[in-house]
Amino acid sequence: MAGRRPGNSGTRDEILAVARKLFSERGYEGTTIRAIAGGAGVNPALVHHFFGSKEQVFIASVDFPVNPFEVLPQLVAGGPPEQFGRRLATLIVEVWSDEQRRAPLLALLRGAMTGEPAGRTLRAVLEKVLMPRLEQAFGTTREVAATAFAQIAGIMLARYVIGLEPLASAPPAEVVEVLAPIIQNAVDTGRSGS
Amino acid sequence: MAGRRPGNSGTRDEILAVARKLFSERGYEGTTIRAIAGGAGVNPALVHHFFGSKEQVFIASVDFPVNPFEVLPQLVAGGPPEQFGRRLATLIVEVWSDEQRRAPLLALLRGAMTGEPAGRTLRAVLEKVLMPRLEQAFGTTREVAATAFAQIAGIMLARYVIGLEPLASAPPAEVVEVLAPIIQNAVDTGRSGS
Repeated sequence: MAGRRPGNSGTRDEILAVARKLFSERGYEGTTIRAIAGGAGVNPALVHHFFGSKEQVFIASVDFPVNPFEVLPQLVAGGPPEQFGRRLATLIVEVWSDEQRRAPLLALLRGAMTGEPAGRTLRAVLEKVLMPRLEQAFGTTREVAATAFAQIAGIMLARYVIGLEPLASAPPAEVVEVLAPIIQNAVDTGRSGS
Repeated sequence: MAGRRPGNSGTRDEILAVARKLFSERGYEGTTIRAIAGGAGVNPALVHHFFGSKEQVFIASVDFPVNPFEVLPQLVAGGPPEQFGRRLATLIVEVWSDEQRRAPLLALLRGAMTGEPAGRTLRAVLEKVLMPRLEQAFGTTREVAATAFAQIAGIMLARYVIGLEPLASAPPAEVVEVLAPIIQNAVDTGRSGS
């Protein structure tokens, strides 16, 4: 925080507010760092300084409860690839078990069920940020990654929204056991090149 | 149609309208054939005559696009258990590929995302009708059946609501390949008693 100047956090929030608006109105592809900077009345270099890439401004603007640019490389490097499924499943269950961190994910899913801007946002999170990282790390194809994310979303919806038993009352450790093989299977498909 | 008396179809529709209202207000457990008959001003025997059991009135009242009481036993008997996953996956993809038959399923899922009566209805369809039938046929546990249904729902949401590629544009035969092992895995878990 040493180099932080007064007013920075207001500017950062302003940039995020403009980014949220533009991504929602124009979609991921239609939004540029330049347009975000213009909307916030700042230099594009300042947007890069605060966030890095467009992907990172985007993830910050959707209130995603983890930073996948930090967390996914840590999980990939954090143990053998044969246990990546369990590591990611543990993180997913940890995030979803916390009501505050679950809320933005549920809002995204609920929104995607009923309206186009939220659907476009959720697609962009998956297609531009999460799926490419699985592809880079393990060679997982788009179809396999999309299927795994869809399966995980379905299980979280059943547990937290629909209240389907026994998933709704299952202890978190049991949900890890359900999710880990789904993710590991996707990873293994990529690693074996099939 | 030989024994059909004039006015029957009006009465049948009235019974369904009352059933829909009561199941939605009181839930599955809180609704009786007697109460439905009372609301429609008919004898309970007539409700049994038209529909059979309470489960069957319920399924008819939610506009479920197949009759699971007919279709599931046919699928179970229709070939070897090792290929049940493929048979059910084929049916699911057939139903979801038809916009008219997909609509009530999407309405149920969308409703369940945003409000309690639809959530309760969807839970009752799964917990009272579909999951017990997998249990009867293959010994599939509730947790395994619930997980399989959640995964399938997630894939259909990704394909038809969120529009996640490449699932959204995948040909139906490819979606069968995605769903079949999920169902077969659930069936096999039950059959092996694990």
